[in-house]
Amino acid sequence: MDIIKVRAVSRTAAVAGAIAGVIREQKHAEVQAIGAGAVNQSIKAMILARNFLEQDGIDVVFIPEFVNVEIEGKIRTAIRITVEPR
Amino acid sequence: MDIIKVRAVSRTAAVAGAIAGVIREQKHAEVQAIGAGAVNQSIKAMILARNFLEQDGIDVVFIPEFVNVEIEGKIRTAIRITVEPR
Repeated sequence: MDIIKVRAVSRTAAVAGAIAGVIREQKHAEVQAIGAGAVNQSIKAMILARNFLEQDGIDVVFIPEFVNVEIEGKIRTAIRITVEPR
Repeated sequence: MDIIKVRAVSRTAAVAGAIAGVIREQKHAEVQAIGAGAVNQSIKAMILARNFLEQDGIDVVFIPEFVNVEIEGKIRTAIRITVEPR
């Protein structure tokens, strides 16, 4: 499954649309962010996605975790947030 | 119920302990943050709180929303995150 990678400059509406689309199709989505700006955009996008999905009668919850990812040869700690119907 | 207010300079372990304590006692906690730094600390604290509570056999999920709060006479948009057992 593709992970939705969010950056500090990502548009929240676009990320929210991606999350909602993946949830509708697969009932499970994963969002990944590195750094405070990206995490903040992720959470804002999730609130919007939650509102989109509520209109379809889907009530989603979020489960965050730390994951180590390799970027340009360096290990960095990312925050990965799983989105699932409640 | 008291809302756990998180700031960019809040210690994640302390916030995580507060979240876990409230969940153990009341089965419901609310965390509030304003700004990217505070939201990031909140999410990190939630990951730690989730790990603490897993050791007690409690599996928590997170539901974020926007709320308007008045601070020194000005309306600001905060992110409030509800924490509940799954």
